[in-house]
Amino acid sequence: MCNTHVLSVSSAKAPFEKKTIERRELRPDDILIDIKYSGICHSDIHSAHDEWGGGIFPMVPGHEIAGVVAAVGSEVTKFVVGDRVGVGCFVDSCGECEYCLSGEEQFCMKGVVSTYNALDYDGQPTYGGYSQKIVVTERFVVRIPDVLSMDVASPLLCAGITTYSPLKHWNASPGKKVAILGMGGLGHLAIQYAHALGAEVTVLSRSMNKKNEAMEFGADHYFATSDPNTFNELAGRFDLILNTVSANLDVDAYLSLLRIDGTLVNVGAPGKPDQYNVFSLIMGRRSIAGSLVGGIRETQEMLDFSAQHGIVPKIEVIRADQVDEAYERVLQSDVRYRFVIDISTL
Amino acid sequence: MCNTHVLSVSSAKAPFEKKTIERRELRPDDILIDIKYSGICHSDIHSAHDEWGGGIFPMVPGHEIAGVVAAVGSEVTKFVVGDRVGVGCFVDSCGECEYCLSGEEQFCMKGVVSTYNALDYDGQPTYGGYSQKIVVTERFVVRIPDVLSMDVASPLLCAGITTYSPLKHWNASPGKKVAILGMGGLGHLAIQYAHALGAEVTVLSRSMNKKNEAMEFGADHYFATSDPNTFNELAGRFDLILNTVSANLDVDAYLSLLRIDGTLVNVGAPGKPDQYNVFSLIMGRRSIAGSLVGGIRETQEMLDFSAQHGIVPKIEVIRADQVDEAYERVLQSDVRYRFVIDISTL
Repeated sequence: MCNTHVLSVSSAKAPFEKKTIERRELRPDDILIDIKYSGICHSDIHSAHDEWGGGIFPMVPGHEIAGVVAAVGSEVTKFVVGDRVGVGCFVDSCGECEYCLSGEEQFCMKGVVSTYNALDYDGQPTYGGYSQKIVVTERFVVRIPDVLSMDVASPLLCAGITTYSPLKHWNASPGKKVAILGMGGLGHLAIQYAHALGAEVTVLSRSMNKKNEAMEFGADHYFATSDPNTFNELAGRFDLILNTVSANLDVDAYLSLLRIDGTLVNVGAPGKPDQYNVFSLIMGRRSIAGSLVGGIRETQEMLDFSAQHGIVPKIEVIRADQVDEAYERVLQSDVRYRFVIDISTL
Repeated sequence: MCNTHVLSVSSAKAPFEKKTIERRELRPDDILIDIKYSGICHSDIHSAHDEWGGGIFPMVPGHEIAGVVAAVGSEVTKFVVGDRVGVGCFVDSCGECEYCLSGEEQFCMKGVVSTYNALDYDGQPTYGGYSQKIVVTERFVVRIPDVLSMDVASPLLCAGITTYSPLKHWNASPGKKVAILGMGGLGHLAIQYAHALGAEVTVLSRSMNKKNEAMEFGADHYFATSDPNTFNELAGRFDLILNTVSANLDVDAYLSLLRIDGTLVNVGAPGKPDQYNVFSLIMGRRSIAGSLVGGIRETQEMLDFSAQHGIVPKIEVIRADQVDEAYERVLQSDVRYRFVIDISTL
């Protein structure tokens, strides 16, 4: 066993406290990671505030983990001490079902084990990346390419794969018109991926405030959704809308922006149901879909793609004692575009 | 010009009356059809009752038309007098946009012209198949294979293509598990197509009443949606659910029956919006979609496929003076499974 400092909340909406927990003894296929940076994802806030219910407290959030291998179990073959590695949203799966075998562990039929706020297969709660150390089976550890700095690599482990995976799945590519709805932690990465994949990229953001930055990230067009004229001008335009906003939408209005056979893909989930008129789908053979992070193989592919194309998040590095404040600022949309905790300050 | 008897309603929910209207003089590419049978589609009722708004009265419904070519325009090349032909939901489109050129006239960018309750490109209202004669440009006329009787062929022109097209588009095929939700005019054909395409077919119907018939149509399994246990037993089962029911659904409950990457396709539209929890989509990369009839080329393919596989609707032939009563019975779900008007009684 090894002790590690963590940031934990004792109950829903409680402030973060520095505590010490034990990480498990290394199993033969386990890796001990010295965490260097840990990104703050909007899901961390939903979970720490128990907005989705079923929260397991005390809770140590964090599923955007970048660090260095500190020790390896006796049967580990893919990594050695000193390797630069990442861990994302999941730390185990059955490894045997059709989805695990096809590299889509997020859909594991036994139930994938989330990096925090979940029960591991041994019945113990999982504790995430707001922590100096973590122990993870090597199958759920990915390699961070040398050209990516640790701090900017960490948000890729969730925000990166969450946007890269649906863009690949729904074929963002040359000749395709893709809209990115929302330009926050997810959206500003989605713009870069969609652009690097060759699509024509339009950003749909509440106001015109982020236009210049959107263009720097690779957007071809930018429209404010607060301007009703946007919906007339862009009617029937897009093959794909990637919705990165976790709030309820006027779904029919966004469906009207799709071409025939177009798809509105959601990667964020509001707390309340959305509603739609079935005619909005029928009249253009359109679809509403959702996408959940991505598998481990695709996460490695995303990191390699990011390294190759120079895609990194724009981040604000904070100290461990600034996390409560950072949560407040995320809720005010006052972050461009991702907070990352410097774990050396913990 | 030629006079023809029709059944028309003078206003929303008015009873049908026998009237005489004029059909236009044949243009060079027009065909005059002597209608033999005309199916009653649920859309006819929605339209005649003006439930979707914008109804053009007096209205002559009917877009499931089977008849015989009575005369052809000077430049008609595909048909000769005496040919057995059908007309479905549309009678014209621009013929030049990308969708028309790809054989998906239902999505014509100029706006496809519906067979009734629409304005034709010349500004004149269109009048449908509850009529002795109709004039249609040859591009929107299909050939009824010899082995299909006229009476059973007529409902294929809407109910047939409306179910065949999405089953093909979403790849109902060997190894795929397909559920048909609702076993009415559309559903009983959908079962037959999904079975002939090689899929494993499950019927989801309110009660167990139609089980024996479902199995005769080619279903492999049958479950009652009124039994809550159905939703536990079938969780995560289907690649595709084809929803033929035009009423509001518990969308989340049906999404839970889909496998990863499964799709719930709607071909009927309720008057009020449906609602869903975005998590139901995200957690399985699932989709909700809609499908609109089909193009002319695919309509011909569907008729040929129906002839080849012996797929026909089960119908109840009625006289022209029974249409009001038939509408009432459709609204009571008291028809197995499609009413067809014998136009010789008009």
